[in-house]
Amino acid sequence: MIWVNGVASDCLSVTDRGLLYGDGVWETLAVTQGQPQLLEWHLERLQQGLRALAIDQPDWAMLRTEIDHACHVQVSGVLKLMITRGSGSRGYNPNPVRGNTRILQTSDYTAVPAGYTENGIRLFLCATRLAQQPRLAGFKHLNRLEQVLARAEFGNDYQEGLVCDYQGHVIEGTMSNLFIVHKDGSVCTPDLHLCGIAGIMRRFIIQTLADFGLRCDIRAVALTELAQAQALFMTNSLIGLWPVREFSNQTYPVPPLLRDLQAAIQTLQ
Amino acid sequence: MIWVNGVASDCLSVTDRGLLYGDGVWETLAVTQGQPQLLEWHLERLQQGLRALAIDQPDWAMLRTEIDHACHVQVSGVLKLMITRGSGSRGYNPNPVRGNTRILQTSDYTAVPAGYTENGIRLFLCATRLAQQPRLAGFKHLNRLEQVLARAEFGNDYQEGLVCDYQGHVIEGTMSNLFIVHKDGSVCTPDLHLCGIAGIMRRFIIQTLADFGLRCDIRAVALTELAQAQALFMTNSLIGLWPVREFSNQTYPVPPLLRDLQAAIQTLQ
Repeated sequence: MIWVNGVASDCLSVTDRGLLYGDGVWETLAVTQGQPQLLEWHLERLQQGLRALAIDQPDWAMLRTEIDHACHVQVSGVLKLMITRGSGSRGYNPNPVRGNTRILQTSDYTAVPAGYTENGIRLFLCATRLAQQPRLAGFKHLNRLEQVLARAEFGNDYQEGLVCDYQGHVIEGTMSNLFIVHKDGSVCTPDLHLCGIAGIMRRFIIQTLADFGLRCDIRAVALTELAQAQALFMTNSLIGLWPVREFSNQTYPVPPLLRDLQAAIQTLQ
Repeated sequence: MIWVNGVASDCLSVTDRGLLYGDGVWETLAVTQGQPQLLEWHLERLQQGLRALAIDQPDWAMLRTEIDHACHVQVSGVLKLMITRGSGSRGYNPNPVRGNTRILQTSDYTAVPAGYTENGIRLFLCATRLAQQPRLAGFKHLNRLEQVLARAEFGNDYQEGLVCDYQGHVIEGTMSNLFIVHKDGSVCTPDLHLCGIAGIMRRFIIQTLADFGLRCDIRAVALTELAQAQALFMTNSLIGLWPVREFSNQTYPVPPLLRDLQAAIQTLQ
């Protein structure tokens, strides 16, 4: 089901700035038993993105009502939220434009082989690099051509692709965040102040590690570090946690910590 | 008037990748006396962008017929063309997606004060910087948040804003390209291999300068060079050529060369 500004419809005006300039933000949530997972954190990131782009805030109470309704219609699956700056006069200037467009879309969760969660995935190294743009880093806006280019590089032999920036730092997967477990047991994940999307499941993992009494370093990560790692894993709101089984001709085990984190994710459902 | 895939409508599916990821390209053309100006060059850039994104080419003969029709409806004004990758399954992967969506939109030209062309404009220096992304430089795709952020910085006291990259090179205006006339009479315009949009009017100016027997250097331009310039001007397909009257507390004259270039643009009509 799709709703545009509260009306069941899949039609958006072609004058909407979401289309014209990618002038908007979005979230993808897992819905289980009629509940959107980690909703508050998703709404927080949505709000952060709207502030970064100086887009008017939606009526949050109305949006929450619509989310409730959508999760009543689709009790298990995927909920996509999108807020754009709406339609305005021609030209980049956002300042005459007030209000926004809200889009909710529910869909079935396309089941992926359970083996990815159990045994891990094959991770591709993408040649596409991410540009450094601190003004647009961290939140989930609609300018996503870098992800499209990176994802186009690999086929079904791989389940995800790793993307670096032009300085050779590892940033993230095309649709997920990366965590590295070092041989001394410490964990780190790339800093995303210059590029990348700070995933909601990434946030949950960082908090869960803290709950476990483990620190997660958030810092610049060189690609060469991955060869020295004990384990690697990728996270997003729909897949949860995928261990990396194989990357760059190297295989990695799945240590107990990853099972503990997967169990924590299960409690969200 | 708006046509989506040849049908008079302003409705686009919210599942279109043009909205979801900015996965498409566009052109804005001036229409005079029923003719789209510099159409071949616009279609060439459109095609270059489609190739860069590996989006299926549209039926060009059909698109040309639709352009003819649109310019018959709107004999004087603005024609906007947009080609997106169309709708596909959820996720960044573009490879299952075949075909595309074409959008044509005509509108009146919003007249700007003739003084901008005659006497020049005030040019703002934007704090927003452009990220370097060679994979997306030069052509006109739908990921335009940097332009939105830059344009939001200045109000009606200025007619255009100048944008640099993070290395301090001058790249372009928010909606136009920059040319610099040096005191020795030589002309240059910033290289756009790492960021920026290579405008069609920029191409026309470079060719016209060659016709005049003048070379235009295309190279990296430091911001500090602008203070030493004899003259500055901005170009795009709708405004033609605007001399810069004032930039960064400095005023610039309008040398005869700019009048000659404006006269050459007039011959397009």
